Amino acid sequence: MHVAIIGGTGDLGEALAVRFALDTDHEITIGSRMASKARTVAEQYRTKVNSASDSRIVGADNTDAARDGDVVILSVPPYHVRSTLDTIQDELTTNRSILVTPGVGISGTSDGVQYDPPDVGSVTELVARLAPSEIPVVGAFHSLPANRLADPDESIDMDTLVVGDEQAPKERVANLVAEIDGLRPVDGGPLTNASTVESLTPLLINVAANNDLGEHPGLKII
Amino acid sequence: MHVAIIGGTGDLGEALAVRFALDTDHEITIGSRMASKARTVAEQYRTKVNSASDSRIVGADNTDAARDGDVVILSVPPYHVRSTLDTIQDELTTNRSILVTPGVGISGTSDGVQYDPPDVGSVTELVARLAPSEIPVVGAFHSLPANRLADPDESIDMDTLVVGDEQAPKERVANLVAEIDGLRPVDGGPLTNASTVESLTPLLINVAANNDLGEHPGLKII
Repeated sequence: MHVAIIGGTGDLGEALAVRFALDTDHEITIGSRMASKARTVAEQYRTKVNSASDSRIVGADNTDAARDGDVVILSVPPYHVRSTLDTIQDELTTNRSILVTPGVGISGTSDGVQYDPPDVGSVTELVARLAPSEIPVVGAFHSLPANRLADPDESIDMDTLVVGDEQAPKERVANLVAEIDGLRPVDGGPLTNASTVESLTPLLINVAANNDLGEHPGLKII
Repeated sequence: MHVAIIGGTGDLGEALAVRFALDTDHEITIGSRMASKARTVAEQYRTKVNSASDSRIVGADNTDAARDGDVVILSVPPYHVRSTLDTIQDELTTNRSILVTPGVGISGTSDGVQYDPPDVGSVTELVARLAPSEIPVVGAFHSLPANRLADPDESIDMDTLVVGDEQAPKERVANLVAEIDGLRPVDGGPLTNASTVESLTPLLINVAANNDLGEHPGLKII
């Protein structure tokens, strides 16, 4: 499978690229608005997983990255969702990709952060509304502690909730999640549940600030 | 300490009574609208924890139960919050109790349940608005799998988020939570976070229905 990480030069992009490279056989394309930056970062990721010659991680501009992706992960801030989708929608349609969004709306407050979803209810639902209608949209990889995943020496044991209205693409994404050692996919139901799933991220950020649980907690259903 | 569980004849009341009896030295009063029912149920709980003669679990009507409580747990459905608080508010004020709410608004849908909070945002905030102003309100014990806690043979290892605007009563409730073996209190921040905390309950119910994680999952931050 080919996984494209649009906006993959950010923290979550690094986390996912490292784990996919370490734990799966998939090809990974890091997308950025500037191809040169994507290529530089892809090389850093290859070094990080100790396979500098590994051709499985490459960089490209977002459009070229999307063209490669069977699964396209839209790892951009919520306010870039619309413009990024404009850039890559033809490639999604041509490739019949599954579009995955880990996005969460968060804003700062005087004493932490708060959940700040778009008007349609959640970033996942926003992506579903803006994406080409024939492209299935799945929410996943929210609430993950990116720094821990980006560290090849860190072992993890946590869950990620997977939401979506279409069962087949949701299961395909869940299977991709399950290939990462220590990361368990949990079916979070339809897109209408995305808001609750996304709101866990600011909650975890506040919880991390107010408790002695480690700086970057994850979640496990037990 | 004296813990009063208002509406304590329900599933969560049983769960908390059993764990407090097993793991702490506190006195527990089970409240119900009918004192006779509360007394019958209290006897069942005593039998359940194998101390039929244990005078630490008693039953009373909700008013008498609240009169005893240093910590008063309002274990009633959201639509009974207002009438129940009317019944017990004089006792809360006299006793300067800490009022704890585990309540969550949930409604059924065609394929599961959904979060259905009151207009003020959360049950916790509703309780805070309706309670006497000098009584601190703390949200806790949401999202707990009552059946597992009610089973004395079941060992648990999970978290409960504790929310509240006043630090001292929140810490007192957190300390009470921590006395239960395998239950960890996690500071969930101020009352404005209650909505996110409460919304975890319907999410977990849906997750349990759609995944092979056991019928009554709990949550752990790791």
